[in-house]
Amino acid sequence: MQYNFSDRISSLKPSAIREIFKVLLNPEVISFAGGNPAPETFPAQPMAEIAAELFEKNYKSSLQYGITEGLPSLRELTSSRLKSKYSVGGPGDDLIIVTGGQQGIDLTAKVFVNEGDAVICESPSFIGALNAFRSYGANLVPVPVDNDGMDMDALEHALKTVPNVKLIYVIPTFQNPSGVTMSLERRHKLLELADKYDVVILEDNPYIELRYSGQYVPPVKSMDERGRVVYVGSYSKIISPGMRVGFVCAPAEITAKIVVAKQVADVHTNQFFMMLVSGLLERFNLDEHIELSRKIYVEKRDAMLAAMQRSFGNKVSWHVPDGGLFIWANLPEGMDGAALCNLAKDRKVAAVPGSAFLCDQNAVSNGFRLNFSMPSLDAIDRGIKIFGECIKEYVG
Amino acid sequence: MQYNFSDRISSLKPSAIREIFKVLLNPEVISFAGGNPAPETFPAQPMAEIAAELFEKNYKSSLQYGITEGLPSLRELTSSRLKSKYSVGGPGDDLIIVTGGQQGIDLTAKVFVNEGDAVICESPSFIGALNAFRSYGANLVPVPVDNDGMDMDALEHALKTVPNVKLIYVIPTFQNPSGVTMSLERRHKLLELADKYDVVILEDNPYIELRYSGQYVPPVKSMDERGRVVYVGSYSKIISPGMRVGFVCAPAEITAKIVVAKQVADVHTNQFFMMLVSGLLERFNLDEHIELSRKIYVEKRDAMLAAMQRSFGNKVSWHVPDGGLFIWANLPEGMDGAALCNLAKDRKVAAVPGSAFLCDQNAVSNGFRLNFSMPSLDAIDRGIKIFGECIKEYVG
Repeated sequence: MQYNFSDRISSLKPSAIREIFKVLLNPEVISFAGGNPAPETFPAQPMAEIAAELFEKNYKSSLQYGITEGLPSLRELTSSRLKSKYSVGGPGDDLIIVTGGQQGIDLTAKVFVNEGDAVICESPSFIGALNAFRSYGANLVPVPVDNDGMDMDALEHALKTVPNVKLIYVIPTFQNPSGVTMSLERRHKLLELADKYDVVILEDNPYIELRYSGQYVPPVKSMDERGRVVYVGSYSKIISPGMRVGFVCAPAEITAKIVVAKQVADVHTNQFFMMLVSGLLERFNLDEHIELSRKIYVEKRDAMLAAMQRSFGNKVSWHVPDGGLFIWANLPEGMDGAALCNLAKDRKVAAVPGSAFLCDQNAVSNGFRLNFSMPSLDAIDRGIKIFGECIKEYVG
Repeated sequence: MQYNFSDRISSLKPSAIREIFKVLLNPEVISFAGGNPAPETFPAQPMAEIAAELFEKNYKSSLQYGITEGLPSLRELTSSRLKSKYSVGGPGDDLIIVTGGQQGIDLTAKVFVNEGDAVICESPSFIGALNAFRSYGANLVPVPVDNDGMDMDALEHALKTVPNVKLIYVIPTFQNPSGVTMSLERRHKLLELADKYDVVILEDNPYIELRYSGQYVPPVKSMDERGRVVYVGSYSKIISPGMRVGFVCAPAEITAKIVVAKQVADVHTNQFFMMLVSGLLERFNLDEHIELSRKIYVEKRDAMLAAMQRSFGNKVSWHVPDGGLFIWANLPEGMDGAALCNLAKDRKVAAVPGSAFLCDQNAVSNGFRLNFSMPSLDAIDRGIKIFGECIKEYVG
């Protein structure tokens, strides 16, 4: 039969990044394409101990239905960690647990965006968020990112001229895919503009704990005095992404709506892993663990930067990220990052072309994104060398 | 500030059932309100063994990102189990893993329903599904259920007269909340009408494995020759609901759209538990385990029916369900199930008023729903006695 799908889903293409996961099933492929944390950072041993206890002493609650807002102890521990480390969460805020940061973004879009409403996004931006907005029929409005983050003049121009803007979506810290961190000055300006034009800011901050250099810049949410910021965070990059445990900290009036949307989305987040993470936060030194992860990542970042320096020639430029998982590089103006990535894919090295991260799904980008967290140091060396050969071939 | 929420979410109320979870935090309350499986049925011991192995030998993949469609081995094992036991899944079908049956329902609605489109539902029906449809702006069209399931004349009338019907949502086996099983004849008729009016059927079948009496009736999907049925199932009632692992079996063209929607919803289902359930299906005798669960449930069902017989008087009628987790009872016409449930709540016994299961959120119902799977035999006896006293007080 002929299926009559909804308008919202008909316009949505499968994510290029998710599709790349399938290419990666071939173990010969060196991948700089995903966004996977290094598996050697997973705290499997302490997790195993807590899990064994949960099965033995607590299986009647850890395997049973839970409440939609999330496990109370995990909400409290997450909330106080956010508050004490990052000054996130004020008196009017509430914190709920979601099935990964992606669900926090998806449900925030669902509770704010009517079909045809606008969402302002950094350009380039995280494809999973762009597709979530598209899936509610949003009009995506790109605002360029430079080395200090979102361009505030362009943002104000968009706020002035685009009708029905509901959200400004930003990843201010170690942005995906650009690696850029928004300056403190621009964060203040962002809040000021959101106030002036009465718009909600969706701050996606999955990489905040993964800083390797440069100076700490506080989250936009920590400066939010008027309940204007929805803050989405995650345990994916500091504990494990496969468990799908994230959180949303936002004004209680907003989290109440997100909870209603979450009830119908998946009832609640995996109860066993909510209890497991709660146990980890209570009994395990997460900060020390993150410190070890950072050491692994800074070594990988620096190895990749050094290899790029050796192999990429002088026609390619890139930004040195102070944290996160990605390096963004640009071919000369007018060239196509997708063409380069295709060449590299034929030689079994995968990266994501910049066009995948644009609001306009048909646009071309001279950029491409390289992930350094997942590959081994050896794979970084070999893969970047091959990438360099492809650059020579394509750019000349 | 004043938040400007989306239209779809503004009309949605928190689920009465989820809200009742909070009442139940008081351990003195006897609850017939939830839909929890009995925790004594959770196979904690074999799950613990597989989990320990996953942490020891497989933590690099079990804690890492997975693919959106779900773990290949779990998809295959689930698919062949469905096929061999229930003849569900034909050559054009695919099976994907979702974060509980609720997500299967939610995403099916998302990929089919435009705002204002109609979804035909049994009346009464599962509140989680009704709210999912509401959250996409669907027009809910109720069709009454009698002791043989959905009324087929009323269904045809609705199909003839209501514009833009996208889905017919049914729980044909041990329906929630009525406990009714749709007859084989009506299942054939349902398919015939779906063909005639070119509509997709969403078959929600979470209780199929929990039959205690009566004769097996095959799923609607097993008789689907034209790719017209989306089948949603779950491991919640036969392994554990807290882990949130369900599945959708549907024509591949439909599952492809659901996968695109799932990418933006939560990326993928909990990877660790997909591997855990896959291990259980390989190495554990699930059918034997379900047989033991059935013995526990039939005893509880019969204890509740006997207690109702003793305490409810002759003005209340009820349907004896052949399976599932619920008994539906009716007060005399014109009376209000919600008033009775409020009386009972004051005496620390919880049940869900029938009005919660209606398409019209403001309608009154003389019915109420009792869950027998979660409470102990002793709690069933004590709670039903108190409920009987409330009936005497309210009905006379």
